[in-house]
Amino acid sequence: MIILMKLGASDAEIQAAAEVIRQRGVEPLILPGEDRAAIGIPAALTHDQKMDLESVLGAMPQVSKVTQTSRPYKLASREFHPSDTVVQVKDVQIGAGSFVVMGGPCSIESYEQFDQAAHVVRQSGATVLRGGAFKPRTSPYAFQGLAKDGLKILKEVGTKYGLVTVTEVMSPDLVPLVAEYSDILQIGARSMQNFPLLIEAGRSMKPVFLKRGPSASIDEFLLAAEYVLSQGNPDVILCERGVMPLDRGYTRNTLDISAVPVLKEYSHLPVIVDPSHGTGVARYVLPLAKAAGVVGADGVMVEMHPNPKQALSDGSQALTPDQFGELMSQVNRLVSLR
Amino acid sequence: MIILMKLGASDAEIQAAAEVIRQRGVEPLILPGEDRAAIGIPAALTHDQKMDLESVLGAMPQVSKVTQTSRPYKLASREFHPSDTVVQVKDVQIGAGSFVVMGGPCSIESYEQFDQAAHVVRQSGATVLRGGAFKPRTSPYAFQGLAKDGLKILKEVGTKYGLVTVTEVMSPDLVPLVAEYSDILQIGARSMQNFPLLIEAGRSMKPVFLKRGPSASIDEFLLAAEYVLSQGNPDVILCERGVMPLDRGYTRNTLDISAVPVLKEYSHLPVIVDPSHGTGVARYVLPLAKAAGVVGADGVMVEMHPNPKQALSDGSQALTPDQFGELMSQVNRLVSLR
Amino acid sequence: MIILMKLGASDAEIQAAAEVIRQRGVEPLILPGEDRAAIGIPAALTHDQKMDLESVLGAMPQVSKVTQTSRPYKLASREFHPSDTVVQVKDVQIGAGSFVVMGGPCSIESYEQFDQAAHVVRQSGATVLRGGAFKPRTSPYAFQGLAKDGLKILKEVGTKYGLVTVTEVMSPDLVPLVAEYSDILQIGARSMQNFPLLIEAGRSMKPVFLKRGPSASIDEFLLAAEYVLSQGNPDVILCERGVMPLDRGYTRNTLDISAVPVLKEYSHLPVIVDPSHGTGVARYVLPLAKAAGVVGADGVMVEMHPNPKQALSDGSQALTPDQFGELMSQVNRLVSLR
Amino acid sequence: MIILMKLGASDAEIQAAAEVIRQRGVEPLILPGEDRAAIGIPAALTHDQKMDLESVLGAMPQVSKVTQTSRPYKLASREFHPSDTVVQVKDVQIGAGSFVVMGGPCSIESYEQFDQAAHVVRQSGATVLRGGAFKPRTSPYAFQGLAKDGLKILKEVGTKYGLVTVTEVMSPDLVPLVAEYSDILQIGARSMQNFPLLIEAGRSMKPVFLKRGPSASIDEFLLAAEYVLSQGNPDVILCERGVMPLDRGYTRNTLDISAVPVLKEYSHLPVIVDPSHGTGVARYVLPLAKAAGVVGADGVMVEMHPNPKQALSDGSQALTPDQFGELMSQVNRLVSLR
Repeated sequence: MIILMKLGASDAEIQAAAEVIRQRGVEPLILPGEDRAAIGIPAALTHDQKMDLESVLGAMPQVSKVTQTSRPYKLASREFHPSDTVVQVKDVQIGAGSFVVMGGPCSIESYEQFDQAAHVVRQSGATVLRGGAFKPRTSPYAFQGLAKDGLKILKEVGTKYGLVTVTEVMSPDLVPLVAEYSDILQIGARSMQNFPLLIEAGRSMKPVFLKRGPSASIDEFLLAAEYVLSQGNPDVILCERGVMPLDRGYTRNTLDISAVPVLKEYSHLPVIVDPSHGTGVARYVLPLAKAAGVVGADGVMVEMHPNPKQALSDGSQALTPDQFGELMSQVNRLVSLR
Repeated sequence: MIILMKLGASDAEIQAAAEVIRQRGVEPLILPGEDRAAIGIPAALTHDQKMDLESVLGAMPQVSKVTQTSRPYKLASREFHPSDTVVQVKDVQIGAGSFVVMGGPCSIESYEQFDQAAHVVRQSGATVLRGGAFKPRTSPYAFQGLAKDGLKILKEVGTKYGLVTVTEVMSPDLVPLVAEYSDILQIGARSMQNFPLLIEAGRSMKPVFLKRGPSASIDEFLLAAEYVLSQGNPDVILCERGVMPLDRGYTRNTLDISAVPVLKEYSHLPVIVDPSHGTGVARYVLPLAKAAGVVGADGVMVEMHPNPKQALSDGSQALTPDQFGELMSQVNRLVSLR
Repeated sequence: MIILMKLGASDAEIQAAAEVIRQRGVEPLILPGEDRAAIGIPAALTHDQKMDLESVLGAMPQVSKVTQTSRPYKLASREFHPSDTVVQVKDVQIGAGSFVVMGGPCSIESYEQFDQAAHVVRQSGATVLRGGAFKPRTSPYAFQGLAKDGLKILKEVGTKYGLVTVTEVMSPDLVPLVAEYSDILQIGARSMQNFPLLIEAGRSMKPVFLKRGPSASIDEFLLAAEYVLSQGNPDVILCERGVMPLDRGYTRNTLDISAVPVLKEYSHLPVIVDPSHGTGVARYVLPLAKAAGVVGADGVMVEMHPNPKQALSDGSQALTPDQFGELMSQVNRLVSLR
Repeated sequence: MIILMKLGASDAEIQAAAEVIRQRGVEPLILPGEDRAAIGIPAALTHDQKMDLESVLGAMPQVSKVTQTSRPYKLASREFHPSDTVVQVKDVQIGAGSFVVMGGPCSIESYEQFDQAAHVVRQSGATVLRGGAFKPRTSPYAFQGLAKDGLKILKEVGTKYGLVTVTEVMSPDLVPLVAEYSDILQIGARSMQNFPLLIEAGRSMKPVFLKRGPSASIDEFLLAAEYVLSQGNPDVILCERGVMPLDRGYTRNTLDISAVPVLKEYSHLPVIVDPSHGTGVARYVLPLAKAAGVVGADGVMVEMHPNPKQALSDGSQALTPDQFGELMSQVNRLVSLR
């Protein structure tokens, strides 16, 4: 942490700021400077110490600016865990250098619909099956999902086709239920800072698929992962799914493709890209999945529906079975060359 | 809803789009147009009908654009409820033309700290006491609040000083507990789209103080209110608390003061401004509280701490007791003239 | 400037980074740190030195983060110029504690229209007359202004009513022409980073009314002012006119009212608020002008048209003459109490 | 255009709105609706008619919302120009299905530096040489470029190596000068809405390389292109170079990769991606150039410097000659498979 003094701060004022630091048992380093002084704190502080000091020093009249010099996350950081985390779920490895495709409909609507979707996923060679049982919807008047009945279909169909399953959990009290039926727990974008949910998902010790919030910074995203990791659960999969767009007239979100190399550099956790929510438009999913393939992501999550025109939710972004097969083949060819 | 066809769409293609609408039992209105056709749907559709049509029509190759012409919320809309909602909590009326000040510390840290804060609130003439028992923190390493012990202090101190109390609830399963101890349930900014929580808060029939998410649009904000209202709970108080800033180097958020007249026009619900989170800087709280006073808000929520320099959280934005008193007096004088 | 090393950087690597700094003739200060080292640079560096060091050090493999510790502007900074700048234009003082109202239509459409507008401005007691002769329009098909004919009308009408005039200049080569006809040169929001224009406006030695770009940070805004000031022209007036909104369905922009106290603290330049562009909706102009009045602004710029329904541009945000008079009276009453 | 009436608007009020439209010589279509009426305008309106009607109707008390149903640009739109535009510059074709690489330093610093850069560009097989002579810098204290001396070096070196050249022009009065020395005129991101500059660049009849502003929507971007096209100049090349990031701590911008398929669908103009400014970090340039290669872009513009550590500007984002060669080889391999 660095404390920049205002121009013309007197020695007494600089010493007063230094004294605040000393009172916390830390020895400050005063940097004289040509036109103004700064004070460095060379010790490793706890989060609360940092917040406390930032608060107190920031309110002193002769302090111009307090700057945090280190990244706020630790368990999620590659510095503290240099090798890649590989999340193993049954026979699927996520983050081991291979490219994992997760497919399926937005919502589980019926056994038949989901069975057809799983059949397509299996046949195309993808290994993870997605489908929503509890749906977060912006409007209370939108379809909210089949709930527990959906979970049962998820498990039954996943087992039938030998696919790893993933579904969203929206509330901490539902974590045990969802964990019983699904191989991976998904935390949705709007729940990324639902801290009680992150803690429960962490405690479940199930792999957690964490979607980035639509306006979350990289630091906020990795701190959300940190909540899960800090419960002793090492299996977090990060998912970039688009951030707020400048122009909602064309895409629902702006896929932040630059986030992939950033996350791979600063964290050891696997990174999946969701081009379906990333754009909200089915015909942009293939080109963006290809981009994800070559930019270094560990996989993609793609919405596919046996019959998108009859989907109860998000039909406009779902691929048809044929488009899904085409995506698998094109992306695999590119990934083999990356 | 309006469907705009692409340039050069044939009559057959226009009829195909119209037929999709007729299949849903609604008679479309074809608007020929000079250079391209459009199709209007004059009926009142349900939310799912709209979503279904938007999905199916949007995916047709000759459709250029599908536009929703009506606002997506209903119970929160002034059109369906022209008179102002007044939320009555004990003897305090929120939304009745008076200006309500809610004050207190970010976190309840101890009985003594909270008792001192309440004393200041009472003496200054404010009527609502705030204080956090469960704290949402971006980092898992930050102070998380006193939990149930904090709730007990809240109730005891609120009763002692005859103040209405408000505190945040972060998780649906905690709604009954918090509702037992607090007069008003606060839904924090990061929980604005925590739909299970909104539903539980709605069911509790307690007044709900709903903070706008830092990147929530007006429509998303009013749809979150709609979740609470749709449970039969009419007592929602909206709170503007700042949106994502362009420059984090000066303020934590950008207070969206324009949202106040917008919300007052399109909704009947009371609107409170939080200048403490709106800026994150104690010395900007007074000018912004004054702005809130004259722009038409129904009140402000302000952080005040008996000793900000020792606050366990958000000390840099808390007023001292003296500053809080000064704010009460200046704002009340302006409000009397608005 | 502070350079944070990566975890586990060796002494040799720390020395290598320090050596890069010494080569520039500056003595670095090494801060050991408990878990990692940092290096402070206590000297006052030039802008290019900072950029050079940031570039070179940032690319070193063992450097984690380079942080600039000081604000990037100087002439615009209150630290280097503690007293308020007062811009004197004829008999009007901007920034001297009084509240200046600037009124007039978006575009000068004809002598009659502008004469009527000026009459209203004068009668209401406002002192500055605005009107566009060259109009920046997002679409090439929109009305582009009367150009030089508009400037002549501006000068003639301004003189007739004894009002100070302000109009926009969009291009460096037009600065001498506009400076001949107008008392104040306006730099529009979309030109805020048109650096050749800023330099020419600076050289003209005319007062410059600088509008904040819709996505400009505070630092970028003050650096744009710095361009004008660095030409030896001390008369810069800052104008907050709204930033990009989260929801374009209600207002064209989000008025960043928090920017007013921030700019007043960090800069000595006068600050004007434009609630007309700040929202784009005539009926929100009055409440926001009142907010500007009490939050500490030095004035407002307000669009008023003798007949808004016939305006050739921006009619939806213009006040009628009656509304303008009402605004003058309400705002003046509040300002007298602030 | 669609006008939505408020709930409970009377027949007389609906007729009043319709009358406003009829007065402009256009016959409105009244859509009764179940709970509220709407009015459609089936005619092709001019831009000013639209703005006029939006203004006047939007201000009527019983109108709830006015929606533009068509895209605001025309010459830039694929609807009016279905086949791809190919910009031919000497022997280089941009937009013809091949993938064009534009390389070179941020600034032309000396003949030697630029000659070395051009040598690398030529040897690697790239065909367009970039280099700045006039530099837009956020701070007035940063290096501003060699100006006319830089232009001379650009032309001499471009001719020597048989490369097409591109450089930025910042001011309308400099268009003739820059057009004399450079094959392509670049309009920088901060100049995207510098309308006089767009018009002059259009009139020059030179190919125009137009960078998207950091907060420009797709519509604003294509309207800027429309300014150039409307001067009769068909040769506009669009460049996506990153939009404002949510977290400036990692990248300078967020490369909006989704914009590529959107622009290719809605416009016929070629689209180039700039991964150097898109991230601001040299080590992310290669993965993002690969993503651009497979997502459908017509090429990339990449910063390369013979010695990035000594660059006078933007050194942290420039590739070394070796990295540039590696990028050419990897991207070409992927593009051959797309």
